Amino acid sequence: MTSFDLADLERIVADRALADPGQSWTAKLVAAGMPKAAKKLGEESVETVIAAISQSRGELVGESADLLYHLLVVLRIADIPLSDVMAELEGRTIQSGLSEKAGRAAE
Amino acid sequence: MTSFDLADLERIVADRALADPGQSWTAKLVAAGMPKAAKKLGEESVETVIAAISQSRGELVGESADLLYHLLVVLRIADIPLSDVMAELEGRTIQSGLSEKAGRAAE
Amino acid sequence: MTSFDLADLERIVADRALADPGQSWTAKLVAAGMPKAAKKLGEESVETVIAAISQSRGELVGESADLLYHLLVVLRIADIPLSDVMAELEGRTIQSGLSEKAGRAAE
Amino acid sequence: MTSFDLADLERIVADRALADPGQSWTAKLVAAGMPKAAKKLGEESVETVIAAISQSRGELVGESADLLYHLLVVLRIADIPLSDVMAELEGRTIQSGLSEKAGRAAE
Repeated sequence: MTSFDLADLERIVADRALADPGQSWTAKLVAAGMPKAAKKLGEESVETVIAAISQSRGELVGESADLLYHLLVVLRIADIPLSDVMAELEGRTIQSGLSEKAGRAAE
Repeated sequence: MTSFDLADLERIVADRALADPGQSWTAKLVAAGMPKAAKKLGEESVETVIAAISQSRGELVGESADLLYHLLVVLRIADIPLSDVMAELEGRTIQSGLSEKAGRAAE
Repeated sequence: MTSFDLADLERIVADRALADPGQSWTAKLVAAGMPKAAKKLGEESVETVIAAISQSRGELVGESADLLYHLLVVLRIADIPLSDVMAELEGRTIQSGLSEKAGRAAE
Repeated sequence: MTSFDLADLERIVADRALADPGQSWTAKLVAAGMPKAAKKLGEESVETVIAAISQSRGELVGESADLLYHLLVVLRIADIPLSDVMAELEGRTIQSGLSEKAGRAAE
């Protein structure tokens, strides 16, 4: 079991965002701006959905990794710390609110 | 700064998946099966992309939280531990492979 | 074989867009504005992709119909005539350009 | 105003699907099969949603054209005639059912 978590990936994305766009894909994506990064996030989501429906475990692992990476790039461009998103999730959970919130969202 | 992380959310999703579907949205979603859960993941992705493009910070935090939650539900249904996805991300990162892999994926 | 085509649907969408939002779903969607309509388009796309992957013919027919309807609503809100989109498609086709354009888009 | 319509594009897609995949992007996409074609449809949908939200008319025309083209490729692979989809749309419309059906779908 790895101890690598999303906060580690957030730090790596933040570091690479400062690199030379000619040397780093992350820097290139950040430099390209939000429309491009959001488009990549949307594309990876489509691939994750397809992998999930196709029941291909290996692809679902890989696409989920791509999705998390591109979500962190989008948050980086928006200057939103991952901890804000985790605090939102924790808040919903503590008030047992995740189920109700998600329930409403699903209507 | 919260110490709540994705592994905490994974545990909560796993617990709630065992609850009464009449009492828990998570249990209801898991019981509905992968096509429904994957559809919800896709919908939340669309909303995250729209929030990112619309530059609405509050919405982007909320939609990112929804996206992470629904990704964990999909992984739960597929019986894939989050640690498999994190190990994939760590592996790409250690070999500096995240940039190359993502670069290839973008072609 | 029906002679009903997309231009007929465009006229119906335009008519209904002028109706009372309390009476017509189309009028309600148009009144809600582009973010809501674009979100619906994105959701119907996810459902079309899932139906296509799941090889469920009946669902793919229904979801394709939903997708076309919501695309026309988005074009209505943007005040773009369907004929502009068809002229674009015809132009690509005449110059045998559909393949090249799509080929580039796929890279 | 062009008289080019979706049925014309359907014929072109059907013709090109029979061409040499080395010569025609359409033939290549059809040969690649449904997961690839559905993925392309999903990606074009994301780009259409982004163009709609970004209020860029030119891009929305181009992305809508891409979306229609890839939808027809998906229908071709599934062996579903466009007329089945148009009959579904006409049926909903005649019974004034488009609004109610879409209304239910939106819940």
